Amino acid sequence: MTISSPRAEILTIGDEILFGQIIDTNTQWIGTQLTDIGIRPVRKTSVGDNKTDILDAFKAASLRADVVIVTGGLGPTRDDITKHTFCEYFGTELEINQEALTLITGFFAKRGRVMTELNTQQAALPKNCTYIPNLWGTAPGMWFEKDNVIYVSLPGVPFEMKSLMEFEILPRLKKIFSTQIIQHKSVRTIGIGESFLAEKIAPWEDALPENIKLAYLPHFGHVKLRLTGTGTDQALLDEQLQAQVETLLPYISEHVYGFDNDEMETVIGSLLKNNNATVATAESCTGGFVASQITSVPGSSGYFEGSVVSYSNEVKMNVLGVSKETLETFGAVSEQTAREMAEGARKLLNTTYAISTTGIAGPDGGTAEKPVGTVWIACATPDETFTQLLTLRNIRKINVEMTSSYALNLLRKTILKSNLEVKN
Amino acid sequence: MTISSPRAEILTIGDEILFGQIIDTNTQWIGTQLTDIGIRPVRKTSVGDNKTDILDAFKAASLRADVVIVTGGLGPTRDDITKHTFCEYFGTELEINQEALTLITGFFAKRGRVMTELNTQQAALPKNCTYIPNLWGTAPGMWFEKDNVIYVSLPGVPFEMKSLMEFEILPRLKKIFSTQIIQHKSVRTIGIGESFLAEKIAPWEDALPENIKLAYLPHFGHVKLRLTGTGTDQALLDEQLQAQVETLLPYISEHVYGFDNDEMETVIGSLLKNNNATVATAESCTGGFVASQITSVPGSSGYFEGSVVSYSNEVKMNVLGVSKETLETFGAVSEQTAREMAEGARKLLNTTYAISTTGIAGPDGGTAEKPVGTVWIACATPDETFTQLLTLRNIRKINVEMTSSYALNLLRKTILKSNLEVKN
Repeated sequence: MTISSPRAEILTIGDEILFGQIIDTNTQWIGTQLTDIGIRPVRKTSVGDNKTDILDAFKAASLRADVVIVTGGLGPTRDDITKHTFCEYFGTELEINQEALTLITGFFAKRGRVMTELNTQQAALPKNCTYIPNLWGTAPGMWFEKDNVIYVSLPGVPFEMKSLMEFEILPRLKKIFSTQIIQHKSVRTIGIGESFLAEKIAPWEDALPENIKLAYLPHFGHVKLRLTGTGTDQALLDEQLQAQVETLLPYISEHVYGFDNDEMETVIGSLLKNNNATVATAESCTGGFVASQITSVPGSSGYFEGSVVSYSNEVKMNVLGVSKETLETFGAVSEQTAREMAEGARKLLNTTYAISTTGIAGPDGGTAEKPVGTVWIACATPDETFTQLLTLRNIRKINVEMTSSYALNLLRKTILKSNLEVKN
Repeated sequence: MTISSPRAEILTIGDEILFGQIIDTNTQWIGTQLTDIGIRPVRKTSVGDNKTDILDAFKAASLRADVVIVTGGLGPTRDDITKHTFCEYFGTELEINQEALTLITGFFAKRGRVMTELNTQQAALPKNCTYIPNLWGTAPGMWFEKDNVIYVSLPGVPFEMKSLMEFEILPRLKKIFSTQIIQHKSVRTIGIGESFLAEKIAPWEDALPENIKLAYLPHFGHVKLRLTGTGTDQALLDEQLQAQVETLLPYISEHVYGFDNDEMETVIGSLLKNNNATVATAESCTGGFVASQITSVPGSSGYFEGSVVSYSNEVKMNVLGVSKETLETFGAVSEQTAREMAEGARKLLNTTYAISTTGIAGPDGGTAEKPVGTVWIACATPDETFTQLLTLRNIRKINVEMTSSYALNLLRKTILKSNLEVKN
């Protein structure tokens, strides 16, 4: 198949999306992934669990797209009708796919769970489909080709959909539609807003060559700068992108914590491992979120000892050893309390570093002097303790996420600073 | 206009949605709002900033919907493609709307900002539209009627769109289409798979009346059963749905933890508050995730004291008081360790209840005897400690989320059991 500029339509099936019962994040993700491999999404369509509407959407999509990605409507229960509709659309019927049946049977056996007739029926696939094994759930992926249009059907569960796309569908699509090479290179920043970044790097951005585009991808205190290069020579393109990143860095080095798929928690993990150091957290307003971020990294038990979530003043005093005087004089949300929490956790949990958070996450609890979003964070080291005041203005969940990011960044900067001091 | 069952299409305009640069939350919200007033969303469509595609989408929508809600493509910096396309679609042209111009001029004056020619052009509207004043931004809303179809055009900025819908559009639509009512009622279950649920409730599901539909919405160990009822009499419909829920409950009562928008962590919160009880967590494999779930609820400081995340054996022993013998004899992932962690946390943090988690989240650390996904959880009360073995088979992140849900559910069942015992 040779198509110079392949077009895609993303189709979701399910009343729950139409009625607004769930927020659809699948199609956003699929949109980025297709764009990344040079396939242009030209339409997104959502229809309900209704055969006529689905058939109509298949037909309409086939007239404007080379690839139709369909998600949803594949679960074991009766409200799912995607497979039957595919059969009608292609004029075929379902038959049990032995390979799928074996996989599903294994899935249940491994979990020691009994398989029902409904589960067996998940292995029934339209005769004309190419079976795409789903190693992450029980609904198989399906691949159809008809009249130069590719139809891909995936389960709607985000984790299963993403895994199938990443390991099976995107590589196949790339092979079929390999016209130009599209290469990304990202620089990850924290603690500087999108518009300030844009001003700082304007001279560099203005000088970017035609074949390299820049996108600002902001996310709660972070901004990912993504360079997308297009070309025909892989080595040359890599070289070009690398050179651009090197020109960019001096403008914003203090804000850069990583590249490409680096996450703050993995960057922290590598730094701690490389320095044979350990860390603990003492959390009030983040309620365990910082610890759960750190431990989301496989192997974090190598450098993370533990955490004390001290939501009440009693726990701050009795477990972390924050002094009663400090709490009475300065309050729980104060530089002094943050400092004593971090120092207390470092001692109690016996680590190289400890970070602490204390603040007002909201929606209640704010005062004129300390409004919602007032947060103190601290990082204790064997020698000294660094503190930082945050002034956030978001909803509870986002205040917690941003506090966590800034606390991890304070740890990152502290480790780098200690390294520098040791070297000097 | 009298239409018995009005149908709506929601149309978004903008490359940024197609390419996945932003997550579209507008259409989810619009879906819930339309459903609530008895207008049934039958399709959602997203097209790019491209006149041909927009015209095509208008035409197609007008054939299947009574109301077409269009968002996006109205900002001052882009080429106002939506308005021009509406003009072409309706065979009319733009003219400055004086009322809109006055409002926009006032908007800038009030903020002491200079108004540009681009902003003036925002007051230019298709001649055939009913002007809908936007008090929250500079892009006016527009209302069109043609061949018995209503077209509503709104800016894509979520806050402006929502305000315009709430104060202007929904009241108008309600007045025009006061016919059918659509009502939802959800039952939330945990710890039973979709297909097992389906088998258990099959007799009930088969006996559902024509006007009530059932959907299974699974999410990591949880399944939400959503009933959607259609009718003309609100009280009767409420009664019907309630009666169906009551008939359903005996089939699955042990798995039900809430209804409608109840989340496990809010259910726990209410139970604790109502019982004047407090809780703490002792977490190993969940790394603080359970605490962060509990504290995601505003006001959780009223019943949550804190947590010890004991990732290392040292912290398990030195802070939580797990005995060295237990760890050496049974290992960190064992019923005995889970029990001592919960009991230690309850004592240290001085709470009514404490829940603990210890297991192998993966991807590494599994053995033949204790493979990845082997998790023990416990819940300590003043009188006794309950334990439970989980056998999960997922990736790290999901193993953590599922463990957290099951641990909170164990707490829920324990509180309910204590209540029962007190009453007996």
